Amino acid sequence: MPATGTDHIVTAYSDELIQLAQSIAEMGGQVELAIENGTKALLKLDRELADLTIIADQRIDDMQRNIDDMAVSMIARRQPMASDLRAIITSIHVANDLERVGDMAKQLARRSLKLEGMSLQPTFYNGVKNMTALVLRQIKDSLDAYSSRNAAAAIQVCNHDDEVDAMYTSLFRELLTYMMEDPRNITPCTHLLFCAKNLERIGDHATNIAEHAYYLQTGKQLTSDIQELHRTQIKA
Amino acid sequence: MPATGTDHIVTAYSDELIQLAQSIAEMGGQVELAIENGTKALLKLDRELADLTIIADQRIDDMQRNIDDMAVSMIARRQPMASDLRAIITSIHVANDLERVGDMAKQLARRSLKLEGMSLQPTFYNGVKNMTALVLRQIKDSLDAYSSRNAAAAIQVCNHDDEVDAMYTSLFRELLTYMMEDPRNITPCTHLLFCAKNLERIGDHATNIAEHAYYLQTGKQLTSDIQELHRTQIKA
Repeated sequence: MPATGTDHIVTAYSDELIQLAQSIAEMGGQVELAIENGTKALLKLDRELADLTIIADQRIDDMQRNIDDMAVSMIARRQPMASDLRAIITSIHVANDLERVGDMAKQLARRSLKLEGMSLQPTFYNGVKNMTALVLRQIKDSLDAYSSRNAAAAIQVCNHDDEVDAMYTSLFRELLTYMMEDPRNITPCTHLLFCAKNLERIGDHATNIAEHAYYLQTGKQLTSDIQELHRTQIKA
Repeated sequence: MPATGTDHIVTAYSDELIQLAQSIAEMGGQVELAIENGTKALLKLDRELADLTIIADQRIDDMQRNIDDMAVSMIARRQPMASDLRAIITSIHVANDLERVGDMAKQLARRSLKLEGMSLQPTFYNGVKNMTALVLRQIKDSLDAYSSRNAAAAIQVCNHDDEVDAMYTSLFRELLTYMMEDPRNITPCTHLLFCAKNLERIGDHATNIAEHAYYLQTGKQLTSDIQELHRTQIKA
């Protein structure tokens, strides 16, 4: 039986929604890769990888612009109903967060170029390495919560942000002690302090994405009250 | 003569567009105030003002959510045509940037609480003071370019970002020398380094807002190529 005109429109529309979700997933994958490469460039002072990460950020920026254009064009042509409109607007926000995370990864790569030729003790790097693993996990989990529309998983990501903050505070203090021990450590450790701050901010963006995921699924803002409530429920 | 039904709908719609623009302007005003108060709290180590700035940020966050809701509701109900849709979507982006600037101002205020009780020489502050004046000007100019839809003014803001970056680099080096001179300067100067970075990022958000203003007026992305072209034209 041939499809009616209406069927055709409906199918094409849902295709567009799927395409939008796929574009976010693809952008998320590129951003995760950028974090991994940016940190690897930093830890190994690998200039080639740093350059690659910096160039790759342009592609991430283009992806955001495409998602934006796709979303605006869908709203204009399809005049979506409430729940679809929410999904489309949320995709604009998530792409915005991912673009900023891409920027942070680029800054990690750029920082490696500034560290070239400085004497860095391997121990300086341990904290940065551990923090990278944690925030990468947070980004992955927030994107999973978003793509699977899992409100409980979104809350978990928000709750884990405390761990990122605690790790950052501890790393901040550690780097400061290296600086006080020897003035020659001041310049390299200052650069590493900024790297730690970038990673902490990546963690904040993971929380933002998780909050968008929660809103998408429930239609409600994930306030700290709700987080607290869920925390109490988990503990109880 | 009584207004027809259509007239009524058209008027109410343009009222909504004006209200959206006013909300952005109001949010911009609050954000400018937050930058001023955040820096004042930092420079005078004024705990009360710091607390006020931190609390005021919640209001800025609420303003962003309201602008978001207003925009989504307008799109859903009014099904705007291309140019209005561009204006509405752009307002979501600008509110997002303003919210982040509010966050930076809050972080400046928070930093003042960490500096309490530390011995800080007044000269440490000069660079931060000058940078604040510059980025505050950039935010004001970008919001003016946005509200007046002035593409030339938007380009000016983007071009002035180089000054912000140059001032940041110079301040970074200056603070590093204080740290090397005396280990007791390390902790306070590290905090000031982060303040300088926050201010530099406020400058980046001003550039983003200017780019949105340019896009709104011209329908084109303000790429570095276009900026270069305009720069050459100004010089010629």
